[in-house]
Amino acid sequence: MPLRNPVLSAIETYVPGLTTGYVAQAYGLPEADIAKLGSAENPFGPSPLGRAAVAAALDALSLYPNWTAEGLRKKIAAKYGLDPEGVICGAGETELIPLVIRAFTREGGTVAMHEPTFPVYHLAAEAEGRKPIFVPARDELVFDVDDLAAAARPDTGVAFVTSPHSPTGRVFAHADVERLARRLPDTLVVLDEAYWHFSDAPPGFNLLPRCPNLMVMRTFSKAFGLAGLRVGFAAAAPPLVRQLMALKSTWNMGCLQVAGAAAALDDDAHVQRTVAAIKEARAEIERRVNQTNRFQVLPGSQANYVLVKVLDPGLDSTRVFNELLKRGVIVKDCSVSFRALGKRWLRVDVGTRRHVDRFVAALSDIR
Amino acid sequence: MPLRNPVLSAIETYVPGLTTGYVAQAYGLPEADIAKLGSAENPFGPSPLGRAAVAAALDALSLYPNWTAEGLRKKIAAKYGLDPEGVICGAGETELIPLVIRAFTREGGTVAMHEPTFPVYHLAAEAEGRKPIFVPARDELVFDVDDLAAAARPDTGVAFVTSPHSPTGRVFAHADVERLARRLPDTLVVLDEAYWHFSDAPPGFNLLPRCPNLMVMRTFSKAFGLAGLRVGFAAAAPPLVRQLMALKSTWNMGCLQVAGAAAALDDDAHVQRTVAAIKEARAEIERRVNQTNRFQVLPGSQANYVLVKVLDPGLDSTRVFNELLKRGVIVKDCSVSFRALGKRWLRVDVGTRRHVDRFVAALSDIR
Repeated sequence: MPLRNPVLSAIETYVPGLTTGYVAQAYGLPEADIAKLGSAENPFGPSPLGRAAVAAALDALSLYPNWTAEGLRKKIAAKYGLDPEGVICGAGETELIPLVIRAFTREGGTVAMHEPTFPVYHLAAEAEGRKPIFVPARDELVFDVDDLAAAARPDTGVAFVTSPHSPTGRVFAHADVERLARRLPDTLVVLDEAYWHFSDAPPGFNLLPRCPNLMVMRTFSKAFGLAGLRVGFAAAAPPLVRQLMALKSTWNMGCLQVAGAAAALDDDAHVQRTVAAIKEARAEIERRVNQTNRFQVLPGSQANYVLVKVLDPGLDSTRVFNELLKRGVIVKDCSVSFRALGKRWLRVDVGTRRHVDRFVAALSDIR
Repeated sequence: MPLRNPVLSAIETYVPGLTTGYVAQAYGLPEADIAKLGSAENPFGPSPLGRAAVAAALDALSLYPNWTAEGLRKKIAAKYGLDPEGVICGAGETELIPLVIRAFTREGGTVAMHEPTFPVYHLAAEAEGRKPIFVPARDELVFDVDDLAAAARPDTGVAFVTSPHSPTGRVFAHADVERLARRLPDTLVVLDEAYWHFSDAPPGFNLLPRCPNLMVMRTFSKAFGLAGLRVGFAAAAPPLVRQLMALKSTWNMGCLQVAGAAAALDDDAHVQRTVAAIKEARAEIERRVNQTNRFQVLPGSQANYVLVKVLDPGLDSTRVFNELLKRGVIVKDCSVSFRALGKRWLRVDVGTRRHVDRFVAALSDIR
């Protein structure tokens, strides 16, 4: 087949978490009984205000939406004290990540990131004909922004910092992020705060006035419970956002995405309930997993998941993953879902109390 | 600002049709009274089945969608006799057009299209760092596929044919499209059938088995009335679609887009009612505009709009556009919305009978 752009080639595609329907069918289990702890979704469902706003917006379905998602951009700007011209919305961060890579890195250039990290950073870089620079941890899963700065090259257009990090759940201090931005003044530093609500960190937006080459990304898929709607946004200096605005596809955001996300932003009750429950269950899952003496939670997660290490030398992460599946519990086997993590780690969502019980019971049952 | 990819630059952005809210405010008119005839939307609203399916899918909002929109791809494939592996869905054709340009044309390469045409083809080509090749009409607004073939170069990765064409509304014969595909075997020929339902043409899908380098695009924004939901799709040989699938952003389609479009595909009643009404009103608008003797419809439209020529030498399209706005009628001034059409053409949606009356009355009122 002669028809292709030889520069672009996706070596691999994202490995999504399994669905409850798939596991129910494959293992002959009742679907309602399955604990889905592999995709960091909100176990309390969508924001009720967001959901109601989507339902109320159905009359507008036949009309083209505003091409800049203006209503949502203004709402985000007002909520977080930003300039609306410095906000761009996308169908999840996963639409904005490749756009940012394309806009700020030349073809053949490089994109810096820690390893392991959210796989979409390097999958998107490769799909866009750019090369990932992987920056390893110092000690076991301890990451440093100065290592990112040292690894960057003149052709590094974008550097990604995830805080809380995936899969460790640990946060980077603002002083570190600011230092990284200063050390790489010609590189766009993206601070991905997808899991920010579950942390005690101050908002990354605070850094924007001091860092003209910083961009903060957020999603509606986690605390707001709208992963299925596909909404994320990025905030940065207006000249940077204007470049993205001109390069994005014309009507990338539908009217339901705008209506639902704008209303969810006001749903403090849902966010607070979700965050409080996740924080409580996170302490609980850590305590109980560590009690097994055969598995151990990596300390310090400020996300809605924890990283669980398989201590038992007779087991590995893939074996545990499969044994959990048989028991109706879906997690992430990090040997499949992340680069360079080896065969000893599972990423497990912090769900409801019932799911924590299910997970710990299933884990304890594996021999 | 050093932060940019100097290869990519959007020289201009799309000029969307005006909204009723804007015109109501700008001209002090009641919003409900405004005839919105500039965006080729469905005047009968969204498919009721599609709308109901969106409402029924709200429970799934907190879960990540299937990353290939599998449910919708299978439904489209079954409806049109296609291989599901040969179907890709996007947030409107407007997401798929830049993706196709990137996947099948190298950076700096060229993309062939008639002029005038749907502006997103050349805007996306420029935003992706590719160059449009504009192929003019032979006589006044008479386009030929052989001119496209003759203008294509070895670096032409994609050639766009729109049938029905925008803004003329005229269709290309299948034999012509097939000949174009044969003449450019190393180029992807995209047959954009956004307005197909309003035509008497056979479906372009019929050509796919004979043309391995052909892709057919369709939208849910027109006959199905779902422009606000953002759903389109492309059908082609599975090896071509697999390349796009690997390069697209991860979860580009949300669960509501999948649910709504899949249900709308079955809504034959809504599509038939829409198409019958548009065809009747299209004949009516042509007859009545031509009766004015100062304006004339370009014959042969098989779309849900007509191209109206300003014959009156004392007027031009921008003047008429503005005079219509004052009278609460929104159309497209082709001197703004399309390249190389000059100051004598308006693109006017074929709406409801009431809107046809409003448009013709307003037009006749302009002196």
